[in-house]
Amino acid sequence: MKKYYLMAPGPTPVPANVLLAMAQPMIHHRTPEYEALWIEVHAGLKRLFQTTTDVIPVTSSGTGAMEAAVVNTLSAGDTALVVRAGKFGERWEEICRAHGVTTVPLVAPFGATVSAERVAAALAGHPGARAVLMQHSESSTGVLHDVRGVAAVTRGSAAILVVDAVSSLAIADLAMDAWGVDVVVAGSQKGLMLPPGLAFCAVGPRAWERVATARLPRYYFDLAAERQWLARGEPHFTPAVAIMVGLREVLRMLEQEGLDNVFRRHERLARATRAGVEALGLSLFARAAPSPALTAAVAPAGVDSEQILRRYATSHNITIAGGQGEMKGRVFRLGHMGYVADYDVLTAVAALEQVLHELGQPVDFGAGVRAVQKVFVEAA
Amino acid sequence: MKKYYLMAPGPTPVPANVLLAMAQPMIHHRTPEYEALWIEVHAGLKRLFQTTTDVIPVTSSGTGAMEAAVVNTLSAGDTALVVRAGKFGERWEEICRAHGVTTVPLVAPFGATVSAERVAAALAGHPGARAVLMQHSESSTGVLHDVRGVAAVTRGSAAILVVDAVSSLAIADLAMDAWGVDVVVAGSQKGLMLPPGLAFCAVGPRAWERVATARLPRYYFDLAAERQWLARGEPHFTPAVAIMVGLREVLRMLEQEGLDNVFRRHERLARATRAGVEALGLSLFARAAPSPALTAAVAPAGVDSEQILRRYATSHNITIAGGQGEMKGRVFRLGHMGYVADYDVLTAVAALEQVLHELGQPVDFGAGVRAVQKVFVEAA
Repeated sequence: MKKYYLMAPGPTPVPANVLLAMAQPMIHHRTPEYEALWIEVHAGLKRLFQTTTDVIPVTSSGTGAMEAAVVNTLSAGDTALVVRAGKFGERWEEICRAHGVTTVPLVAPFGATVSAERVAAALAGHPGARAVLMQHSESSTGVLHDVRGVAAVTRGSAAILVVDAVSSLAIADLAMDAWGVDVVVAGSQKGLMLPPGLAFCAVGPRAWERVATARLPRYYFDLAAERQWLARGEPHFTPAVAIMVGLREVLRMLEQEGLDNVFRRHERLARATRAGVEALGLSLFARAAPSPALTAAVAPAGVDSEQILRRYATSHNITIAGGQGEMKGRVFRLGHMGYVADYDVLTAVAALEQVLHELGQPVDFGAGVRAVQKVFVEAA
Repeated sequence: MKKYYLMAPGPTPVPANVLLAMAQPMIHHRTPEYEALWIEVHAGLKRLFQTTTDVIPVTSSGTGAMEAAVVNTLSAGDTALVVRAGKFGERWEEICRAHGVTTVPLVAPFGATVSAERVAAALAGHPGARAVLMQHSESSTGVLHDVRGVAAVTRGSAAILVVDAVSSLAIADLAMDAWGVDVVVAGSQKGLMLPPGLAFCAVGPRAWERVATARLPRYYFDLAAERQWLARGEPHFTPAVAIMVGLREVLRMLEQEGLDNVFRRHERLARATRAGVEALGLSLFARAAPSPALTAAVAPAGVDSEQILRRYATSHNITIAGGQGEMKGRVFRLGHMGYVADYDVLTAVAALEQVLHELGQPVDFGAGVRAVQKVFVEAA
């Protein structure tokens, strides 16, 4: 027996009680039973998104919900500012390009962030910009962007703020209404600790106004139509029923823990992971504001980071993730989001010690683990 | 205890072994393990679609895959012929309208079909038509359209044939390559007896040529990009991993039964259901070519069909479906697709006897069941 550990930045482990809830016999989506399920889930989602607006489910990966956010709020020829400091920032640009939306990239080196001041200056320079598109947690670099600061500059502007919170919902605080974020996009397979295949668009009042005039073609991703259907008690298209059943379980778990505790847990695990990685002499890839969802670390000089993840997999049966795009070979990424607790990150760091040793690197065994434990004691 | 039965025309019951396969710990989609899973599943899907072309998975409901078929093969201003003889035929039109594709509807009353000759005449009258869009099994009316006949007239024309096989894949014979169908769309929650949330586009060589020149905007549904990613061993976007794991189980089950036997089983169950319904004095809604996936029956004079499904639910804990759109109140629909066997349809018909009696209709108890049994004996 070689025990398996999934420690990638999504999909994340699914709790056994949630797996079993989803393994219950299939129910139909046009029944009073499903309607009751949706009513409970929708109320829980609103609390989780920290909003009073409707959270519209989309049966797709997170990228589908990103595209839904674009096609429902913009028109061809519109200009959007895009915070591009990682692979998912690039994805916003690719989606816009596919739909004839002009993008103004606000570029930062991968691992860095773009300040709210830069966004404010760009808005001043592009007063016709209709939207600012950004990530909250940029999963490719492990950086947490300053959504709160950006929202403070967009809320008084003509641009709506659209935030990809796929790897921050139920991980890092994102007060949609209080901060003034107009659209929040999320997925099921990260902080929600569910299988991938269900995503969400929470659409605030300023954004709903845009939906009424946005002219990009949409059918499957038509959020206004879906909202009308749901208001009448059933979804337009057949939803991801099983994941929705699992979501009810997850929302109950998160409510029981309390949202503030959920954020604190992730921050604690992230801090411990960073301390462990640095205690082993490695440097973090995130130069600013590391994300509580994952830790991206730079491979030691002379070591291909792909070797590190292969060793994690072959010697220890642990799945972590490598670098994407230009970061491939340089970076490896440890996820600590969702159904994750202290001894998971301790395991990840202990395995890192073993992996570095196997790759011929000098390792002071226990140094990483000790740093992890110190964080636990201090944060206790 | 009130035993529950799901007998709607999708989602359908999921076999317990498949539920448990999907309840296994989550795996990551960029690993050798997932690649091996996809290679097995893709080979099985090709056999199931009866094609040598690539079957591209789409994480969405069936409607998402319908839209994917349109946006990948057509351009704004193109003309498409649409077989419109039910709610899902209307859906093709709605998708085209959303994208600026002009439709020429080939209309038949709900419950009827459109002959291949009419399609040939329409193609002759619209030589610029770029596509014919149709359902194989029209789930709203219970009619099986003549895909083979239509393919015979489209394959020599400038129009590609795009078939919605959501409720016919693994239910009714659809020989994509042999008949010359260009795109086949399907979903997970019907004949594949999986939860909803995974769909497919099988794209033949004539259609791939179209993809290269089709100009409708697409990103999440970009089938050519997804095909390139999969050829390199991983998906572009995070897929519906759990359903994909379940699909491997289902494909093994279907292979073991044999595709011809799968079709024969559905035909037998459909014939038995129709015999049972008619023996109780009700008439079928499908005037031509009833689908082996479901039986749509007309409620007795003076009875609202919504009452029939409510009774099925409240008295017998059985979920069936009602009529959609203009058929609401007139029609009820019994599904017999996927993980369904003789005694399921016998139960559905026995319950219909009870339901009609409860609604004050005269019932010769056992007449429906007897007719079902006779079909079983004759078909044995």
